[in-house]
Amino acid sequence: MTTVSAYAATSPTEPLTPTTITRRAVGPHDVAFDIHFAGICHSDIHTVRGEWGGAKYPVVPGHEIAGVVTAVGSEVTRYAVGDRVGVGCFVDSCRECPQCRAGEEQYCDNPGMVGTYNSVGRDGEPTQGGYSGAIVVDENYVLRIPDALPLDKAAPLLCAGITTYSPLRHWDAGPGKHVAVIGLGGLGHVAVKLAVAMGAEVTVLSQSLKKMEDGLRLGAGDYRATSDPDTFKELRGRFDLILNTVSANLDLERYLKLLKLDGTLVELGMPEHPMSVPAGALIFGRRRIAGSLIGGIAETQEMLDFCAEHDVTPEIEVITPDYINEAYDRVLASDVRYRFVIDTSPLR
Amino acid sequence: MTTVSAYAATSPTEPLTPTTITRRAVGPHDVAFDIHFAGICHSDIHTVRGEWGGAKYPVVPGHEIAGVVTAVGSEVTRYAVGDRVGVGCFVDSCRECPQCRAGEEQYCDNPGMVGTYNSVGRDGEPTQGGYSGAIVVDENYVLRIPDALPLDKAAPLLCAGITTYSPLRHWDAGPGKHVAVIGLGGLGHVAVKLAVAMGAEVTVLSQSLKKMEDGLRLGAGDYRATSDPDTFKELRGRFDLILNTVSANLDLERYLKLLKLDGTLVELGMPEHPMSVPAGALIFGRRRIAGSLIGGIAETQEMLDFCAEHDVTPEIEVITPDYINEAYDRVLASDVRYRFVIDTSPLR
Repeated sequence: MTTVSAYAATSPTEPLTPTTITRRAVGPHDVAFDIHFAGICHSDIHTVRGEWGGAKYPVVPGHEIAGVVTAVGSEVTRYAVGDRVGVGCFVDSCRECPQCRAGEEQYCDNPGMVGTYNSVGRDGEPTQGGYSGAIVVDENYVLRIPDALPLDKAAPLLCAGITTYSPLRHWDAGPGKHVAVIGLGGLGHVAVKLAVAMGAEVTVLSQSLKKMEDGLRLGAGDYRATSDPDTFKELRGRFDLILNTVSANLDLERYLKLLKLDGTLVELGMPEHPMSVPAGALIFGRRRIAGSLIGGIAETQEMLDFCAEHDVTPEIEVITPDYINEAYDRVLASDVRYRFVIDTSPLR
Repeated sequence: MTTVSAYAATSPTEPLTPTTITRRAVGPHDVAFDIHFAGICHSDIHTVRGEWGGAKYPVVPGHEIAGVVTAVGSEVTRYAVGDRVGVGCFVDSCRECPQCRAGEEQYCDNPGMVGTYNSVGRDGEPTQGGYSGAIVVDENYVLRIPDALPLDKAAPLLCAGITTYSPLRHWDAGPGKHVAVIGLGGLGHVAVKLAVAMGAEVTVLSQSLKKMEDGLRLGAGDYRATSDPDTFKELRGRFDLILNTVSANLDLERYLKLLKLDGTLVELGMPEHPMSVPAGALIFGRRRIAGSLIGGIAETQEMLDFCAEHDVTPEIEVITPDYINEAYDRVLASDVRYRFVIDTSPLR
């Protein structure tokens, strides 16, 4: 076991504070790595503030982790000291259920993936995330970060990247397809870049036109304000796919009517209340609402390789760990373009 | 123009009464046929009682119509006097929008299909449905009823049949697929027969086990009561496809959890209130909710041919027109196994 510095939440209401945690000894299948950067995801805030229930304090958040390997176990074959690696939202799963066998570990149901933090590992110990100096993870749940991706910009891809890449791939975003992205935030701005890189025609649907210049610069062909009722008239029946990256409860009927016959609206965020869906908006147009949860390990690697090849990286603001609490307030105020990434060097 | 006898609703609250209506002269592309049988669909009741709004009284309901051709227009190529034919839920559409060109006329949006009743035809006259002695319809919206199908049993296939056949085909029901049908009523019992004929493993999810014997006789491999909480524990993650034929508002979260990864629940009925859908039930399992509306003309013909080939027919109770109002009460009380069909000979 080793002791590493970290930032932890100790209650739903207190700010995160510096602490130390232990990491397990490097087992035969483990990769140990120094964390260089950790992204701040809105989920971190939901979890530490107890909004999703079940927070087991102290919680060290962070599931967008990038760093460099410092040690590997005796049986590890895929990684070596010095490799640039990352870890996303989960660090283990049952490896036996149909989903795990299909490489869709994120949908493991036996009993479920082991989250990178606020979960319990196979050793019975609580897992702790990336707002820390180092971590030890089974090699099967470690990703390789291609040389073309800077580590700071790679970090958010491990959650924001795969959360949007997976549904874009799954619902065939590509040339000739019209894709809308609701919300230009941490997830949305990566979704735009990815969908554009895949060759789709991309429209941003944002509350206002405040970030329009950014959206067009990221590659969107169209940018519309959802506060303008004309948006919903003019875009009726336009899209094959809509990714909803906003976790607020929207008037879904209006958005569903923007879909073509057989189009799909995919929910990526988790609204606080159940969604209200008029059946008619689905029935007239054979439309669908689906959900999608991050991606499996193999697909996450594919996404990183795709981003390296197509020069897709998130727009980030790098901060020091002592700025985490202020960063949280700014995330909640949508005052970041577009992802905070913690430079964890003070914690190493 | 010809005058024919019919049964019409004159207000949302009065019983249907005998009347006469006119049918247009047979145009060059028209097929005129004597109606022999007309099914009673729950939609008929919703419409005449004003529950879906916009009823234009008098309304002659009926969109499950089967009969024999009595005259054809000069340009008609596909039908001849004496042919056994049917008409379903619509009698025209724009023929120009992408959906019409794709043979998905039911999703016409320019401005929409012309309903068989309570709609307005190209001639500007209100359309009137199958609770009558004869009808005149453009040949492009007429179906051929195969000789193997009795006309009385063919009638309900024109709505109940295609409403369930289309989603079963669209979501690939077949060997190795597990399909659940919610509700064993007019739609549900046909869905079971069709899915079984397609080779799927079929489970009926019904409020109680009252109709279990019927369900198993129709070919279902399993029959479960949704009033029993164990049903939802035991069938968790079981189905590729769930067809919801019930228009009541269900606790959808429980049903969504019965789907496998990537499974779809298809809404066929129109619940009175918007559905309440927790996003998590979609996100964890990449599940989908979709809607489906009857089927196009080509697919309806395919369905009739499939039913003839696989001996799939609805279970019906044939009634005379003077029993329509009583039949409506019994439909609302779920007291019919499983579809009322009006023998319209008194109206000819």
